[in-house]
Amino acid sequence: MSRRAAIIGGGVIGGGWAARFLLNGWDVAVFDPDPEAERKLGEVLANARRSLPGLYDVALPTEGQLTYHSRIEDAVAGAAWVQESVPERLDLKHKVFGQILSALAPDALIGSSTSGFKPSELGAGVVDASRIMVTHPFNPVYLLPVVEVVPHATVGEQNVQRAMQLLASLGMKPLRLRREIDAHVADRFLEAVWREALWLIKDDIATTTEIDDVIRFGFGIRWAQMGLFETYRIAGGEAGMAHFLAQFGPCLSWPWTKLMDVPELDDALVQKISSQSDAQSGMRSIRELERIRDDNLVAMMRALKGRNWASGQIMLEHDARLQRATPAPDWSQPIETASRTVPIDWTDYNGHMNEARYLEVFSAATDRFMQLIGCDASYIAAGYSYFTVESHLQHIAEVHAGARIRVLTQLLSGSGKRLHLYSELFDEGGQRLATGEQLLIHVSLETRRAAPPAASLQQRLQDIETRQAALPRPGRLHCGQRD
Amino acid sequence: MSRRAAIIGGGVIGGGWAARFLLNGWDVAVFDPDPEAERKLGEVLANARRSLPGLYDVALPTEGQLTYHSRIEDAVAGAAWVQESVPERLDLKHKVFGQILSALAPDALIGSSTSGFKPSELGAGVVDASRIMVTHPFNPVYLLPVVEVVPHATVGEQNVQRAMQLLASLGMKPLRLRREIDAHVADRFLEAVWREALWLIKDDIATTTEIDDVIRFGFGIRWAQMGLFETYRIAGGEAGMAHFLAQFGPCLSWPWTKLMDVPELDDALVQKISSQSDAQSGMRSIRELERIRDDNLVAMMRALKGRNWASGQIMLEHDARLQRATPAPDWSQPIETASRTVPIDWTDYNGHMNEARYLEVFSAATDRFMQLIGCDASYIAAGYSYFTVESHLQHIAEVHAGARIRVLTQLLSGSGKRLHLYSELFDEGGQRLATGEQLLIHVSLETRRAAPPAASLQQRLQDIETRQAALPRPGRLHCGQRD
Repeated sequence: MSRRAAIIGGGVIGGGWAARFLLNGWDVAVFDPDPEAERKLGEVLANARRSLPGLYDVALPTEGQLTYHSRIEDAVAGAAWVQESVPERLDLKHKVFGQILSALAPDALIGSSTSGFKPSELGAGVVDASRIMVTHPFNPVYLLPVVEVVPHATVGEQNVQRAMQLLASLGMKPLRLRREIDAHVADRFLEAVWREALWLIKDDIATTTEIDDVIRFGFGIRWAQMGLFETYRIAGGEAGMAHFLAQFGPCLSWPWTKLMDVPELDDALVQKISSQSDAQSGMRSIRELERIRDDNLVAMMRALKGRNWASGQIMLEHDARLQRATPAPDWSQPIETASRTVPIDWTDYNGHMNEARYLEVFSAATDRFMQLIGCDASYIAAGYSYFTVESHLQHIAEVHAGARIRVLTQLLSGSGKRLHLYSELFDEGGQRLATGEQLLIHVSLETRRAAPPAASLQQRLQDIETRQAALPRPGRLHCGQRD
Repeated sequence: MSRRAAIIGGGVIGGGWAARFLLNGWDVAVFDPDPEAERKLGEVLANARRSLPGLYDVALPTEGQLTYHSRIEDAVAGAAWVQESVPERLDLKHKVFGQILSALAPDALIGSSTSGFKPSELGAGVVDASRIMVTHPFNPVYLLPVVEVVPHATVGEQNVQRAMQLLASLGMKPLRLRREIDAHVADRFLEAVWREALWLIKDDIATTTEIDDVIRFGFGIRWAQMGLFETYRIAGGEAGMAHFLAQFGPCLSWPWTKLMDVPELDDALVQKISSQSDAQSGMRSIRELERIRDDNLVAMMRALKGRNWASGQIMLEHDARLQRATPAPDWSQPIETASRTVPIDWTDYNGHMNEARYLEVFSAATDRFMQLIGCDASYIAAGYSYFTVESHLQHIAEVHAGARIRVLTQLLSGSGKRLHLYSELFDEGGQRLATGEQLLIHVSLETRRAAPPAASLQQRLQDIETRQAALPRPGRLHCGQRD
C-alpha cells in the first residue's frame, strides 16, 4: 500500500487530517478550490507541528511531502486513502465522490469527515459506495484521537478493518458505530448540551463564562479520563451499576427539561451570546486561543500518558509502534538512547526547556539503555532494577519546545552492581546541549537494597564494556567519588 | 470566625467535604446516623489524603481535628459553616435544617449539597432560611474545584460573599447562579447527555465502553480546559461567535433528537447497561476505579497548573494563598526553600519518586531562593534571570507519593555572575533523602548571555554570604570544577 493520502477540502478539519498524515510520514496531496487554501492549511499545519510531535517519547517518521492540486483526479491519483472534508451539502459531496471514484486506485478507500450525513445518504448518489465510510474526527484533528467510523452497508469487512488499522497507525482511536444514526454519537451529546445551554443564557441563569466554568471545573475534566458510564459506576459504589440505575432512573421523568423546546436563535439571543463570548474570550485572538487549547491538550494528554490511561494509552501504543521501527544498535559506539521532540509542557518561565527536563531526558535515556541490555519490563517484573544514586549534569545550551533532540550514551563501567553511564544530548544540528553522567546500583525491588545483576545481564555489560573500551572518555568524572 | 465545620451526612459527598475542610486545616464535626459512617468517611478521607495535598507546590496547613457526634446540635455547636449532605428527601432536609438552626452560632452559614432541590424549596419549611444556600459540589469533592452556589432569596449579600470566600479558601471555585433553576446548571447538561446515551444503548448504536470512549477521546478532554462556548468560538474562526451561531443555528431544528422521548428504564435496559458496564469495568473494584480516577485527575490538574489555565489556575491561586502565610527566613541558617507533598504523578515504574523529580524539587527550591533574594517575577519580567549551568545530585533514599518533604538551601557563593547553591532534601522525620548542588549564572534574557546582577541583588547575596559564612560546607563540591 502506498503511503499517500489525498485531502479533498483543506479547511480546519481537512487541514488537521493533512497534518496527521504528513507528520506520520505520509505524502499528502491536497485539493481545495479556495484561493486562500494554502495559507489556511499552512496555519493548521504550523499548529500541528508545534504540538503533535512532542506528544510522543519517540521521534515521528520524517515528514511526508505536501502537494497542492487543482483537480480532484490529480490529488487522488495513487492515493491509498482519500479524506473528504468539503462543505456539508449532499449534492456537493455526491459530485466530489464521483470525481474521486473516477481516478481512485482499485484498493483505495474514502473517508468522509461529515457530521451531518449518514453513510446511506453519502452512498445514495454515487457509482460505487462500497469504498465509502464516515470517518468523523474532532477538532483539533491533529491532537484529539477519536474518529467515529461508520461504513456504508456495502463496504466489505476487510476494508473496514483496513481503515481501522490505518487510522490507528496515525495515532488515532477509531470507534466503529454498530449502526448508522443521524449525527453519529458524539454530536448527539453536544447538540443536547448546546440546546440546554442556549436556554440557560436566554433565561439569564448563567453567562457563557459561567457555563464554561461549570463544565471545565466539574464534569469536563472528569470526562477527559472516564466517560459517563464508568463515572456513574463509581457513583453507584460497591452495589454496582444496577444500584446506580435504580437511584438515578426516576430523574428521567423529571418535568423540568427544555430539551425539545428549542429556543429561537433570533438576533437578540445571537447578540447576547456573542457579547458574552466577547467579554469572556475577546481579549485573545482565535490563533492565541488555538495555541492555548493545544498547549493544554498536550499537557493533559502527556499527564494521562504517565497514568497509561485514556488518550495517554493511545499515545503509548503509538510510541511502541514507532519504537519497533528503530534498528539494532552498533555496540562499539555510543548508543542512541533517545530521539524525540521537546514537548510544549517542558518549557518554563525562562522560555526554554526547564533544567529538570534535562534529567528527565537522561533518565529516559538510561531506561532505554537498560531496556536494550535486557533490563526490560519483564526483568523488572521479576523483581530487579537499577536505582540511580548520583547524577551530574552540565547544561550547555538552551533548547526549546518543538526541537528534535537525541541522546548518545556511553557505558563507562558495568561491572558488579554498578552501572556508570555518560550521555550527551544533541540538537538536530549536532550541537551539544548537555551532558549527563549517572551512577546506578543494581537492586532487588523486594529488599530495596543492592543486589548482583543476573548473569546474562552481567555478561552483556562486560561485552559492551569491551566493545566501547576504545571510545574517548569524558575529561573529568563527577560521580562515584568519595566525599 | 472559627475554623470549625459541621458535616451533616458523611457519605461520599459529605465525606469529600469533610476532607476538603480537614486538609485545609479546619476542625470537622460529623453527624451521620449510619453505623458504618466512620468506616465510609475514613475511606473517602484516605483517598483525599493520597491525592489532594500533592496538587499543591506548597504544604497545606496541619490537618484539623475530626470528631463524630450522635446529635446534630452537638456537631453544629461552634461551627462557622454547616454542610448538609443528607439523602435527597425534602421532608428530611427540612427536619435537619430545623435541628441545625436550633444550635447554630448567629453568624454561621449553611450550605446544602442538594442537586435536586432549589433554595426556595429548601427554605420553605424552616424557621430562618436567610442562612441557607445551595452549595452543590461534584464528586470527588476533595479534588474537583467547582461548587454551584445558589442562595435562598433571603440570604444577605454579605453572607453570600462570605460563603464564596470561604469556599475559595478551600481551593474551590464557587460559581454563583444568577437565578435558581431545577437541578442547577451542570446536572441539566448531564441529564441531557444521559437521556441520549440511554437511547444509544437501547438501540444498539454503541455500548457503554464505546460511548465512554467517544466522550473521553474527544469532547471530554477538550472540556477539561475550555467549555462549550470558548471551544465553539474557536470553531467559528476569526469571523467570530456570531458567524459560528449563524452556521450552527439550523441544527437546532433537526428532527432526529430523542431528547424528550425518554426510554423506559425497564429490567431489560437496566440489565443491558449493567452487563455492558461489567464487561467494561468489572475487572476493577470501585476502590481501584476511584484511585485510578483520582490519579488521572491529579496528573491532569497538575498539567493544567503548568499552563496556568482552568483548574490549574485555581490551584496556583491556592498555592499563593498558602505561600503568603510562611514567615520570613532566618538568613544565618540554611533557608527552607520547599515544603510540600510528593504528588501521585511523580512516581515511576520502580514505585518511588522518579529521579528527575529530585531535580524538579531542587529546581523549584532554587526558584524559591531566587524569589526570596529579590530575583522574583518582576525582576525576571525586567529581562534578567539565572540559568543553571551545572547540577549534581546524590539520591540517598527513596521517597513515595504522599510524603511531606522539605528542602533547606545554603548559599555557597553569590558573588559576581555566579550563584552556587547547596540544597538538602529531607522527609518529615528529618531523614536526608538527597543533596543537590547547583551552579547558576546570572543572564540577560535578551542576549541569553551572562550579565551582572542588579546592585541590589548583589548586595543581598553578599549579605547572605556573610551571614552563612559560619555554616559547615559540604565535604566535596562537584560543580564549577574545570574539566
